[in-house]
Amino acid sequence: MSTHHFHSIGEKDILFFQKIIGEPFVLVSQEDRIHYGHDETEDLNFPPDVVLKPSTTKEISEVMKYCFEMNICVTPLGARTGLSGGALAVHGGVGLSMERFNQILEIDEKNLQVHVQPGVITQVLQETVEKQGLYYPPDPSSRGSCFIGGNLAENAGGPHAVKYGVTKDFVLNLEVVLPNGEIIQTGANTLKNSTGYNLTQLMVGSEGTLGIITKAVLKLIPKPKHDILMLVPFSSAERACAAVSAIFRAGITPSALEFMERDAIDWTLKFVDDIQLPIGDEVQAHLLIEIDGNHLDMMMKDCEIIMEVVQEFEAGEILFADDQTQKDKLWKLRRRVGEAVKSNSVYKEEDTVVPRFELPTLLKGVKEIGGRYGFQSVCYGHAGDGNLHINIIKGDLSDEIWTHQLPLAIKEIFELCVQLGGTLSGEHGIGWVQKEYMPISFSQTELTLMRSIKHVFDPKNILNPSKILP
Amino acid sequence: MSTHHFHSIGEKDILFFQKIIGEPFVLVSQEDRIHYGHDETEDLNFPPDVVLKPSTTKEISEVMKYCFEMNICVTPLGARTGLSGGALAVHGGVGLSMERFNQILEIDEKNLQVHVQPGVITQVLQETVEKQGLYYPPDPSSRGSCFIGGNLAENAGGPHAVKYGVTKDFVLNLEVVLPNGEIIQTGANTLKNSTGYNLTQLMVGSEGTLGIITKAVLKLIPKPKHDILMLVPFSSAERACAAVSAIFRAGITPSALEFMERDAIDWTLKFVDDIQLPIGDEVQAHLLIEIDGNHLDMMMKDCEIIMEVVQEFEAGEILFADDQTQKDKLWKLRRRVGEAVKSNSVYKEEDTVVPRFELPTLLKGVKEIGGRYGFQSVCYGHAGDGNLHINIIKGDLSDEIWTHQLPLAIKEIFELCVQLGGTLSGEHGIGWVQKEYMPISFSQTELTLMRSIKHVFDPKNILNPSKILP
Repeated sequence: MSTHHFHSIGEKDILFFQKIIGEPFVLVSQEDRIHYGHDETEDLNFPPDVVLKPSTTKEISEVMKYCFEMNICVTPLGARTGLSGGALAVHGGVGLSMERFNQILEIDEKNLQVHVQPGVITQVLQETVEKQGLYYPPDPSSRGSCFIGGNLAENAGGPHAVKYGVTKDFVLNLEVVLPNGEIIQTGANTLKNSTGYNLTQLMVGSEGTLGIITKAVLKLIPKPKHDILMLVPFSSAERACAAVSAIFRAGITPSALEFMERDAIDWTLKFVDDIQLPIGDEVQAHLLIEIDGNHLDMMMKDCEIIMEVVQEFEAGEILFADDQTQKDKLWKLRRRVGEAVKSNSVYKEEDTVVPRFELPTLLKGVKEIGGRYGFQSVCYGHAGDGNLHINIIKGDLSDEIWTHQLPLAIKEIFELCVQLGGTLSGEHGIGWVQKEYMPISFSQTELTLMRSIKHVFDPKNILNPSKILP
Repeated sequence: MSTHHFHSIGEKDILFFQKIIGEPFVLVSQEDRIHYGHDETEDLNFPPDVVLKPSTTKEISEVMKYCFEMNICVTPLGARTGLSGGALAVHGGVGLSMERFNQILEIDEKNLQVHVQPGVITQVLQETVEKQGLYYPPDPSSRGSCFIGGNLAENAGGPHAVKYGVTKDFVLNLEVVLPNGEIIQTGANTLKNSTGYNLTQLMVGSEGTLGIITKAVLKLIPKPKHDILMLVPFSSAERACAAVSAIFRAGITPSALEFMERDAIDWTLKFVDDIQLPIGDEVQAHLLIEIDGNHLDMMMKDCEIIMEVVQEFEAGEILFADDQTQKDKLWKLRRRVGEAVKSNSVYKEEDTVVPRFELPTLLKGVKEIGGRYGFQSVCYGHAGDGNLHINIIKGDLSDEIWTHQLPLAIKEIFELCVQLGGTLSGEHGIGWVQKEYMPISFSQTELTLMRSIKHVFDPKNILNPSKILP
C-alpha cells in the first residue's frame, strides 16, 4: 500500500509551517528533534525532521492540508509515555506535538460530561473534576504525565478499568482532523447513539493513524466517597491469579485488582527506596485489591467476602492501608514496577490479555517459554481484566539471542494468548514494536479490512505510517 | 456508489440455495414472502424474493459467496421487531432469516461471558443466565421477542442502559460473515483490547450492512439481588424531565429512569385493560424509577434521596411497587406504550437523543413544532439517557399533510436535537425510514467516510443496500 517515498522537508516547508503556527512553535534543532524522537518504548529514538506545536484545530487542519498535498508524513505526539512506539516518527517528517492543546474547555456538571483538549494530563483532568465530586476513572500508570489524547489513541486502561471500563467506555464524541485536513465530529454528546457507523469507537485505539483528535467529549460519573485498599500475599503466583477469578465469581467487583510477582515488588521496593515493606520469604506474589463505594459498612462486608475467598487460595496475612499515605505508598509500589524494571536492565514489555480465568495458565506458560528460551520475566498487571504485563529482562542474554531468539519466544507467548481466547495488547497498543505479531491474532482477511479502513481515512498513508499493521 | 441493478432471483438460484441449506429452509410462497417482508416499522412491507433459513456459518458463507458472485442483494432478518426498517428487503432479493441460529452455546461462568448465536431471544438469554446468578442488562421493550442479533445490529438499549450501558458495552467479540462470504473474528474474548482497529464496535450498530453476525461473545455481570420500583407523578412534563438530571447530580445512578407523558400512560392503560391505576387530573407525566443493588438498606437510602430531589420538582404522591406482580404491571405499562399508540392511530416514531439535561428543552421544542405543524405527539422514553421516543399521531391529519408536511416537522425536531448536542437515534437505528435525515447530523465529509467504510466491507453493495446512508 505505502511506498514510503515521503517528501523530505526543506526550507520552503519550514517557512510555511512558521507562517501557519508561528516561528517559536516550529522546532528544528538537533536537540529538540531527539527530545521529541522517543516515547517510553525501550531505547528507541526516531527524530522527526521538524517538530510543530500548533494550538488550534484550524492550524492543524492547514498543516495537514499542506502535508497531504506535499506528501509529508506526520506523526502525532502526545506526552510520549507510550510503550508500543506509537508516537515514534519512524519515517522522520513532521512530529506534531499536541502539548499546547492543554485546556479543559468545560466541565458540564448538568450532563456529567467534560469537554477537553487532547494535551491535558490525565491526572490533571481527574483532579480537576474531582473538585466537583466527579470522576474520570481511566488511569494508566503514567497518569501523572500522559495526555488524554494518548489515552484515546491507545485506548488506555489502568487499574480501575476492572470496575469502570477503559478509555473507550468514557468517550462520547471527538473532533478529529483527517489526514487531508478536513475536520469532522465522530458522534454526538449523548450516552446512547445508534446513528450511523461508530466513527468514535473506530478512532479510539487507532493510535493516531486515522486522524488527529483535537477535542474530546468524555463521560464523567459521581466520585465514590470511600475506598479500601488491601495487599494480599500468596505463596504461589498461580494461586494468586486463580483467586482473582474466584473473587468475581463471589459476586464482588473490586474497583482495582492488581497482580504483582515477587520480583516486581522486590525490584520496585529497591527502586523507590522510601517505602519499607517486610515480606516473608515464602511470599511469591501479591494481589492489590481496592473496593470503592459510598457506604463504608457495605464495603467492609465485601472485604470480608474477599478475605474468605483468598483464604481458599492460601493467602498470607492481609495488609490493610490505614490512611491515605499508606494507600499512596501501596499504589506507588504498583504504579512504578515498569520504571523499576526499566532502571534495572534492558527489557521488553508485552501487554498480554486473556479471559480472566485463563490468567494462571498464561502465567505458567510464560514461565515455561522463558525456561526454554533462557530468559527471566517479571510479571504484573491488571489481573481483574486478565491483562498481564510481561517484562522480559535482557540481563546476561547475548545481543544475538536478544535480537534473533527473543522474537520467537514472544511469538510463542502471543500464540498462547490467542489460544486462550486472548490477544496481543490489552491497553498499550500495537504501535511500532508489536506490529509484526499482528498475524498471530488476525487473519489476512481481517488485516486487509484494517488496511482498507486506514486507506479510507488516509489514502496517501501520510499519518503515522508503518504503525499497527505489518 | 450503488447502481441497484441486482440480479433477479430465478429457478437456478433457488436450486442452488436448496442444495446448500436444504429444501425446507428455502421459502418462496407469496405468504412467506409477505410474512418476512415487514418488521415493526409503520405499515411497511417489502417482500424478499426468497427467504432462506440457514443454520450454520458455513451455509451463510456459501450463500454469500454465491450472492456476491451473482450480484444478488441480501437482507439479514432477525426477529423483525425493529422500528427503523433496518430489516426491510427494500430491493427484494434474499431475506436471510437468522431464526435457526437460536442456541446459547456456552455460559462461561468462570469468565462471566456467554457465547451466543444471534437468533436467541434477548429475554431467553437473560432468564437463562439469571439461573446462574448472572445478568445481561440490555433489554429493549421488545425483549420478549427480539433477537440478540438484532440488538447487536441496532445497538439496542432499553431501560437499564442508564446504569449498565447499551448493547455495545457488552460485546467482546463477534464472528461475522462478510458480503463476499469470508468469515472473520472481530476481536478477542477479553475485557480489554488495544489490538488493531475496533472492528467489533464498527460492526455493532451497523444494522446488518457490513456483515452478518453469526456468533457473539458477550460480557455478563453478577445479577443484583434486589430492586425497588417507584412511580412518581408530576403536574408538568417539563418538571418531570428536569428532575431526571437532578437525580444524577445528587449522586444517584438509578438502574432505570423512564419518562411517560400523561397521554402515554392513559393510552396504555386503555390498551392493556388488566391494570387499574387511579391518576389525578393534575398529573401530566410520570417518572418510573428503579434502584437495584445487593444491600436493601442502602438502596432505601438512595430512594430517600430521590424522594427529596423529586419534591423540589413538585412531584405528587409516589407509588412504590409492593411486590413482583405490581412491578411487572408498572413495567408492562412502560414497555407497551409503543404498541398502545400503534393500536390507536397511524403514527411515526422518532428515537431522539440529547444530553440528559437538555430533555425539558427538547420536549418543549417538540410540542412547539407540533403546534405549528398541527400534529399531536405522545412522548416517553429513557429519560436517564436523554433518549426521548416521540410518537407522532396521524389522527385526523390528511394524507397530503402526513406525506409532505410531516417530514419538514421531523427535520425541525432533529435539527433541534443536534443543536442541543444530540442526534437522530439513541437505540432504534437509522435503517430505511430515517436515512434522509442523516445530513442533519453529519457533514458530507462524515457521510463520505461512512460510505467508504461500507464499500470496504461490501464493494458490490449487496448486503442490506439502501440503509443508513442517504
